[in-house]
Amino acid sequence: MGDALRVALAGLGTVGGGVIRLLDANRDLITRRAGRPIEIVAVSARDRTKDRGVDLSRFAWVDDTAALASHPDADVVVELIGGSDGPALTLARTALGAGRGFVTANKAMLAHHGLELAQKAEETNAALKFEAAVAGGIPVIKGLREGAAANAIARVYGILNGTCNFILSKMEAEGRDFAEVLSEAQALGYAEADPSFDIDGVDAAHKLSILAAIAFGTQPAFADVAIGGVRHVLAADIAQAASLGYRVRLVGVAEEGANGLFQRVHPHLVPLDHPLAHVTGSTNAVVAEGNFVGRLLFQGAGAGDGPTASAVVADLIDIARGEYGASFAMPAHELIPAAKADSGERRGRAYLRFTVQDKVGVLAEIAAAMRDAGVSIESLIQRGEAADGGVMIAIVTHEGPERAVAQALERLRGSQSLVGQPLLMHILG
Amino acid sequence: MGDALRVALAGLGTVGGGVIRLLDANRDLITRRAGRPIEIVAVSARDRTKDRGVDLSRFAWVDDTAALASHPDADVVVELIGGSDGPALTLARTALGAGRGFVTANKAMLAHHGLELAQKAEETNAALKFEAAVAGGIPVIKGLREGAAANAIARVYGILNGTCNFILSKMEAEGRDFAEVLSEAQALGYAEADPSFDIDGVDAAHKLSILAAIAFGTQPAFADVAIGGVRHVLAADIAQAASLGYRVRLVGVAEEGANGLFQRVHPHLVPLDHPLAHVTGSTNAVVAEGNFVGRLLFQGAGAGDGPTASAVVADLIDIARGEYGASFAMPAHELIPAAKADSGERRGRAYLRFTVQDKVGVLAEIAAAMRDAGVSIESLIQRGEAADGGVMIAIVTHEGPERAVAQALERLRGSQSLVGQPLLMHILG
Repeated sequence: MGDALRVALAGLGTVGGGVIRLLDANRDLITRRAGRPIEIVAVSARDRTKDRGVDLSRFAWVDDTAALASHPDADVVVELIGGSDGPALTLARTALGAGRGFVTANKAMLAHHGLELAQKAEETNAALKFEAAVAGGIPVIKGLREGAAANAIARVYGILNGTCNFILSKMEAEGRDFAEVLSEAQALGYAEADPSFDIDGVDAAHKLSILAAIAFGTQPAFADVAIGGVRHVLAADIAQAASLGYRVRLVGVAEEGANGLFQRVHPHLVPLDHPLAHVTGSTNAVVAEGNFVGRLLFQGAGAGDGPTASAVVADLIDIARGEYGASFAMPAHELIPAAKADSGERRGRAYLRFTVQDKVGVLAEIAAAMRDAGVSIESLIQRGEAADGGVMIAIVTHEGPERAVAQALERLRGSQSLVGQPLLMHILG
Repeated sequence: MGDALRVALAGLGTVGGGVIRLLDANRDLITRRAGRPIEIVAVSARDRTKDRGVDLSRFAWVDDTAALASHPDADVVVELIGGSDGPALTLARTALGAGRGFVTANKAMLAHHGLELAQKAEETNAALKFEAAVAGGIPVIKGLREGAAANAIARVYGILNGTCNFILSKMEAEGRDFAEVLSEAQALGYAEADPSFDIDGVDAAHKLSILAAIAFGTQPAFADVAIGGVRHVLAADIAQAASLGYRVRLVGVAEEGANGLFQRVHPHLVPLDHPLAHVTGSTNAVVAEGNFVGRLLFQGAGAGDGPTASAVVADLIDIARGEYGASFAMPAHELIPAAKADSGERRGRAYLRFTVQDKVGVLAEIAAAMRDAGVSIESLIQRGEAADGGVMIAIVTHEGPERAVAQALERLRGSQSLVGQPLLMHILG
């Protein structure tokens, strides 16, 4: 039995409390598996007096979170504060700079500063681990970094935001519209009071940029992710997609294009025979396509204190075992700056929904715009009354360059026939 | 850049060839990820002259496979010969005894001798890795050993044999019977000429016993796995299950029961809302239920040269990186001898199918046997003409102890009313 791995914990919110409960509940098992105990020695959070339902009196309390990085008794700092900059980043820099291990669930910080932190970890031979940052409890960082390490990855994609998937599956199951379901999700605690990071796709984009770096050996390039959210998806879109044999999911996709790395988060139509179509509620799932392994799927709880704590402690067990290395699967200097792919070159099928005025000639106008942009139509469905008094026209295109669809929408911009903005969703191929 | 990891490869069948092709195809990427090249230096197989479609002239040829264990240039031996004993076991013992790393896809050998080999690896501080032994390319050994390591696992289960799943999904899709589909699978190379290890559940049981040891911290106990195969599943059973909202899958289940470790491979009815119901063809999938992470699903190709080679080389990358440790997730002396659970105590629902003579009183006889054994019937369907001229009766039970169902079948044993053996399938709960 080796000496204990001593942990300083920054942040005592829902996940921080989960980590303490997990280490209490599974103490003996973790000691057997890690070959040594894992013990929290110090904690820090904003409010010392708040009741978190766990006994904190066993741990040293540190008022200044940044001081955890130099706490004399700690081998590893666990950061569960959040935020891409500020105290979390300061803590990361100082802990790694001091050669301490650093475990975090902070996807925003990694998306923005992951390369710098990986370099710093390598300079001081410190562990930098972040399984909990992507897809909650699912060991997908490990799955890509190690499990699929023998493969050239053609594409990595998945359902990376539990809030969006919860909302979309509930809209689907109950035929209700977005705003109503979002309010309910907020009341239940499944969505934040300010939900924009989740529903506008930013959270999923943070995670995607981390997965892409590991999968493709590129520097994290969050700024290059094209981001769209689920705010404008109607119950009618979901019903229309269902009648065509699809479910609507917010999918993040990263792939190596001919001219660079393509990264996008966007609502997609997922065919019913694809496993992602069957991922409901706040579950997450990630698919990696390797040149030898084929399609690998990792699925599980994408958020919540238990699953996220499971991932944090898995990282600590790796560190306790001494089984860790380059954070992004290869040394930071091996990561290549990725060129941003031109999505116009990308070929695919798309779903387009227009709400239009009920008057003569509108259909002809839309059809002409498609024709003039070179978009080939596979099916077109016109439906009577849409929610806002107009008529709904849903189009599924044949496979073609994305540029053509964008051009068709550009031609229709400002048309007096349209009521509101059209909705574009890509079809997962 | 470190020195190359030098590999001696035993066995040049489909997987061995795949390993060579993979290391050729992804050489640069693997070097970046592993931090050093991975190079085959010596190979051994039965027939030196056979054309395997890869250039072997680069490697030293060793006639005596056992001599690979002491090859002066090799750091690691990869064993792809197969067989629970014989040359594979000799090679494992001598390689590990000499302190060489050992990577294998040999589930039968691990199920029978895994504990001894893990002990030997620890004595000499050698790596012993076997990701390819379970579920082909899916990193499920890693998922349990590391990804879910923070959790007490309540249950691990899954589709572990691609041949059976291929046959069952084909029977389902085409409404055809077992023997016919098996012949076709054999012609296509999806089933062996002697298919009994696959279709009778032995292969899945080997894999299950390895997963159970890692999940529960117990010594591998293959002899305690209750094994049933898919040979007696009829197209009519699959159709009946479908009409009730289920698909038939061969599922291996291991769980901690009140009185010991329960391990069973058996055809199951899987409800349509469970991810395993959507696993078709030769795909494998494994679910682990952890006390903090909840339900984790790992899915992918369960066999084939590419996926299996992917898992073998992932193990080599772990070794090249120096990221490995106790094979069964904890040191061998920590693994507890598992008591075999009494399955009679286990509660569940079951599907029972009888083929009976079309005469008065048969239904009453079956119903009485159920009543007398204390089996509560949820639904009973009697269908006209069965394949062999009898009448088919399908029963779904309410949840109850498995002992009661076994007793009911015992009461009916030898009944003149039955045509052939009844079929029992458990319902995945």
